[in-house]
Amino acid sequence: MLRNANVKGVQVRRGGDPSRLRRLNSTDVLAALYAQGPCTLTEVSAVTGLSRPTVEDVVEDFVRDRIVRELPPEPGGTGRPARRFRFGADEGFVAGIDIGVHKVLVILANLEGEVREVRRSTVDPDLGRPERLAVARTALARCLDDSGVAPSRLRAIGAGTPGVVHDGAVTLCTVLPDWTGLDLGRALMTESPVPVVVENDANLATIAEHWRGAAQDVRDAVCVLAGNRVAAGVLIGGRLHRGHRGGAGELGLLPALRWEEAPDRLLAACPGTGDLAAVFAAARSGDARATAAVDGFTDDLATGTAALLLAVDPAVVVVGGGLSRAGDLIAGGLRERLAALCPPPPEVRVSALGDEAVATGAIRVALERATEDLFPDGLPVGSLPPR
Amino acid sequence: MLRNANVKGVQVRRGGDPSRLRRLNSTDVLAALYAQGPCTLTEVSAVTGLSRPTVEDVVEDFVRDRIVRELPPEPGGTGRPARRFRFGADEGFVAGIDIGVHKVLVILANLEGEVREVRRSTVDPDLGRPERLAVARTALARCLDDSGVAPSRLRAIGAGTPGVVHDGAVTLCTVLPDWTGLDLGRALMTESPVPVVVENDANLATIAEHWRGAAQDVRDAVCVLAGNRVAAGVLIGGRLHRGHRGGAGELGLLPALRWEEAPDRLLAACPGTGDLAAVFAAARSGDARATAAVDGFTDDLATGTAALLLAVDPAVVVVGGGLSRAGDLIAGGLRERLAALCPPPPEVRVSALGDEAVATGAIRVALERATEDLFPDGLPVGSLPPR
Repeated sequence: MLRNANVKGVQVRRGGDPSRLRRLNSTDVLAALYAQGPCTLTEVSAVTGLSRPTVEDVVEDFVRDRIVRELPPEPGGTGRPARRFRFGADEGFVAGIDIGVHKVLVILANLEGEVREVRRSTVDPDLGRPERLAVARTALARCLDDSGVAPSRLRAIGAGTPGVVHDGAVTLCTVLPDWTGLDLGRALMTESPVPVVVENDANLATIAEHWRGAAQDVRDAVCVLAGNRVAAGVLIGGRLHRGHRGGAGELGLLPALRWEEAPDRLLAACPGTGDLAAVFAAARSGDARATAAVDGFTDDLATGTAALLLAVDPAVVVVGGGLSRAGDLIAGGLRERLAALCPPPPEVRVSALGDEAVATGAIRVALERATEDLFPDGLPVGSLPPR
Repeated sequence: MLRNANVKGVQVRRGGDPSRLRRLNSTDVLAALYAQGPCTLTEVSAVTGLSRPTVEDVVEDFVRDRIVRELPPEPGGTGRPARRFRFGADEGFVAGIDIGVHKVLVILANLEGEVREVRRSTVDPDLGRPERLAVARTALARCLDDSGVAPSRLRAIGAGTPGVVHDGAVTLCTVLPDWTGLDLGRALMTESPVPVVVENDANLATIAEHWRGAAQDVRDAVCVLAGNRVAAGVLIGGRLHRGHRGGAGELGLLPALRWEEAPDRLLAACPGTGDLAAVFAAARSGDARATAAVDGFTDDLATGTAALLLAVDPAVVVVGGGLSRAGDLIAGGLRERLAALCPPPPEVRVSALGDEAVATGAIRVALERATEDLFPDGLPVGSLPPR
């Protein structure tokens, strides 16, 4: 069982004793299997620089603990086929939950982050706290059920919410009814004691864009969620920058930056159109009024984004959000305005993850929590390609 | 000679050979001597965890290379007095130069950062490029001369300038005449080939506040220079955050944030008063018009500062700048406005370094450059107390 793995958190430091060295070797071997997919012992030895007997010892231990699986030998060839092993990715699962204004999205993935199930529920913006939480819980249960995963195999849950998050609780949220003060971590706990990692939605989207999205190749980025709410996350040195109180990137609070009112202004400019998605659809089909309204929205977006760029000076800006199939409608105008507001022009990219960005980031933080004993230095780089 | 030290840059990694281990031990011993001041071999052994014979070997090598000095034995006590050693701080010197709109400030310090000389030159805001550079070069030469330090003993120069800095050159500067495009690193090179580290002035002030100023106890801070120019630097995780193009914190470019025009507006509100320092002096002595003008300045300052706080979410804001004896005049009003703009109220501190902040930061980056071969993992923590 992964939970009882004999690999404990160790720090890589000079000096040390044989048992520590053995733990470090174990981490290296497991990281190689996690990052490379199915491998022979010789291949693991080549990747890690460890001797083949050492690798074999370590792998046998992991197989006994069901952290690593031995695969059937590949047919063909002459002589005895080489034994092949892979990380026991299906020994456990993680869930990523995005609780938004208009939707609840749940993704279920195995321990390599391979997506097994995606479930989208549309919710009313006015839905109360208990009802909204019930939607999330039900969606998670359905995801497990539909994919035949017993709840006991769930290792961690990641959850994204609008607002400022501290220690699993929402300390400030202006867009979901009765949401400020909610201990979301506790509220999402299932009957079995599964750890829940709660994070601001824009922060999770930022993590996701760096992991599997449009910011994989950079270490410093700003990710702007532009939709029914405008918010942003900040990536610095390849890591999420949360800030002292978990509020980094929450520019909506400053009226001069025009983020908070931007969605309402967009809707007000197109009375009778319905919701933001409808306005974007109308703009895409050439409606003049909707085009002008989206232009105004982009303008509102640009001021706060420029402030964020000048503050942080990232390598790229990723524009995403629930409406991000509208991202290319926004990106061009945003690029133009940012070039004028903060020259030289920064690189503006459209999210590669669409409305799954937040839940994908939630999967990532849940994976980190679920495997922190196995990979004390963080999840190995490599893993599976984006979905 | 420090320049020829046999300690090379190594990375702390597991595994390795005896000569690498010896280098690591050397670094530890030297770091202990640098951080602790005069020590006996037994004391170094206690701090580093290395055996006394190992410490003695390493120290003897350093003494031969004049990196460490043996001190005269302490009188008194019975038996043979313990040998005492200290880092050879006076084997080399570094200079920090702050080239500003109204002044050029040069600080000379030894390799432990102990300040030997400070020289302030007032300059005309309209002074041209060659004349301004000449003031800086002359001030440095006088500093060396007055303190009896031969130019050949200068190990590195740090230099601060307004504007965006990239690779030693000023890529954008709106406040010094003919300054954009200047290769300041090359311009400040002396006849001997001394390395010059060039950095944005607000960035250096930020480094200085973390090193010896008001932000020593935090790892995430924003430092706002409020004076004849408003600019800011960002500290994240205990390190300066420069940003992708070296522009992090340069909010002045965005008109909505009101930083660029703030000093001119302050002056315009008090016609005939002279310069900003005079306006602050008048406000301090109770002049109603000046007080109202400073209030307006604080208001302008608050908008951009709030944007920076919301973007980065630091633990503290330090208000500094050439006029920072006016810092307490500003800090109160700023604290009040920020509490309204970005609740909960952030901690606002007044700079502890006054108009020496930029040059102090320049000393720090010069020290790092001068000792990078000795301390590959960075300057040891400890060192001397603030001046």
